[in-house]
Amino acid sequence: MITRADVEAAAHRIAGRVRRTPVAELDPDVFAPAGRVWLKLEFMQHSGSFKARGAFNRILAAAEAGELPAEGVIAASGGNAGLAVAYAAKSLDIPAEVYVPTTAPLVKVTKLGALGATVVQHGTEYAEAYEAATKRAADTGALFCHAYDQPEVCAGQGSLALELLEALGQVDTVVLAVGGGGLMAGVATALQGQARVVGVEPETIPTLHAALVAGRPVDIEVSGIAADSLGARRVGTIAYEVAVRTGVRSVLVTEDTIVAARRLLWNHHRIVVEHGTAAALAALTSGAYHPTVGERIAILLCGANTDPADLAH
Amino acid sequence: MITRADVEAAAHRIAGRVRRTPVAELDPDVFAPAGRVWLKLEFMQHSGSFKARGAFNRILAAAEAGELPAEGVIAASGGNAGLAVAYAAKSLDIPAEVYVPTTAPLVKVTKLGALGATVVQHGTEYAEAYEAATKRAADTGALFCHAYDQPEVCAGQGSLALELLEALGQVDTVVLAVGGGGLMAGVATALQGQARVVGVEPETIPTLHAALVAGRPVDIEVSGIAADSLGARRVGTIAYEVAVRTGVRSVLVTEDTIVAARRLLWNHHRIVVEHGTAAALAALTSGAYHPTVGERIAILLCGANTDPADLAH
Repeated sequence: MITRADVEAAAHRIAGRVRRTPVAELDPDVFAPAGRVWLKLEFMQHSGSFKARGAFNRILAAAEAGELPAEGVIAASGGNAGLAVAYAAKSLDIPAEVYVPTTAPLVKVTKLGALGATVVQHGTEYAEAYEAATKRAADTGALFCHAYDQPEVCAGQGSLALELLEALGQVDTVVLAVGGGGLMAGVATALQGQARVVGVEPETIPTLHAALVAGRPVDIEVSGIAADSLGARRVGTIAYEVAVRTGVRSVLVTEDTIVAARRLLWNHHRIVVEHGTAAALAALTSGAYHPTVGERIAILLCGANTDPADLAH
Repeated sequence: MITRADVEAAAHRIAGRVRRTPVAELDPDVFAPAGRVWLKLEFMQHSGSFKARGAFNRILAAAEAGELPAEGVIAASGGNAGLAVAYAAKSLDIPAEVYVPTTAPLVKVTKLGALGATVVQHGTEYAEAYEAATKRAADTGALFCHAYDQPEVCAGQGSLALELLEALGQVDTVVLAVGGGGLMAGVATALQGQARVVGVEPETIPTLHAALVAGRPVDIEVSGIAADSLGARRVGTIAYEVAVRTGVRSVLVTEDTIVAARRLLWNHHRIVVEHGTAAALAALTSGAYHPTVGERIAILLCGANTDPADLAH
């Protein structure tokens, strides 16, 4: 279980290491009958997603406790989490190993390498890379940084919610995309009793939705356009506990509405985000989430590790 | 001559029609010895550039004076100014004609049409389209909206500077790109006595630089990667007068540094801008502008009507 105090400690710990990302207000009445609606531009964070927050908190909390080994850190991810751990390690001048499957695109391997990480390609699936990474961490004593299911990681992501409150004063609802649920866990913990959290997932990757139906985290099939950033097979145990405890509302969106929401952001705001991030906006553009009269809503645009080429025209 | 009062009136007039665009602070010491440095994310404005401000002010000021004809508005531009006038006219539900040369790319013509404007293709060069547009305005009585050299247009662009002061309190320096000089004129007028303005131009399109050397606006050859947004042949008479009166500092940057600055914004901030806009940042990344110790600087990122495809990897 993580608490608001954990999130506050994380925010304090990582201050100066992460960017305070700006907030942009949407045009009036665009989601009537909602009141004011804002976009949190978290895709402008270091390493291109919110994951830098959790990565810094995980590493700095270990350092504070005197538990950061000379061997550095290990992660298993060819996506946002891997980039974030590599970035944080480089910034803190410690070694990082990142495990990815042999099927990982060269461009991702190159990016990780450019951040100074040692990239280890193992297995043909993420699960195999993950297993090898945890084994390696046990062998060497390096600090394993999970993509979402560690208390320090979730608490770090939650620092985003505190920033949001500082910028906006008060909001009724925060809408965010859910993959493994680390962001949701931190944000919902930080906002408990203050704001509703809406967790949005593609219909093709309903980890939270399936867990709430089953009454526990369960494995699902992963597919679809947002799998590169929201491709966890099951929601984290921390995230599930927070979702149930705080009453996170689960909403599903279609592939088409995700693609349309991503295009809308470029066409009307000149913002580029990854498909997983666009899912959050799609909850509103598609009507999957119905705002109430005057509802003050913040939509988290949490990552932009994407190829913008298809947005050209 | 335009005054601070003109800019304040413009800001009041267009309030609610244009977006208050956010400001993002850069990482500490990135341009040492400068102090805090911010990016004004004006590319998120309606129609993808700051030009919406001037277009709204030009049209609404005419309406206020009872001088907005039923024939609507006319502009000559296949670029940001044309898009802005078309957007403002659509938003105000009045007709718009936009003249472009027959050489204008289909994608621009399509965009203008999608905004509801009547697109007239005339001549093979911008100058011919411009001449036909002014003649047409004289014939029909429609309101001609210049891309930069009208007082209401310059004053409208200046509203950006007032927003900046509200967001940041005080800055020492505002760095912006100069084409025809409408943005520079409005901003320098608004900030006179409060902040220094640095006008940045590509070496290949030095309209302001050439005018300051010659002692009057002069025609120059236009070429290079930023010509689509900064392609005016000579700086506006209003802009020149403001530059001399307020002491705008002129800085030139190379093509290479513009391309690198645009790429840096994507790689490190997930921001996409057009090349003309990147010129402003290039003044700092290239060292063409040397900040002083502790200098508080705002860099205006003023447009993103660009194809993001080349930023992919």
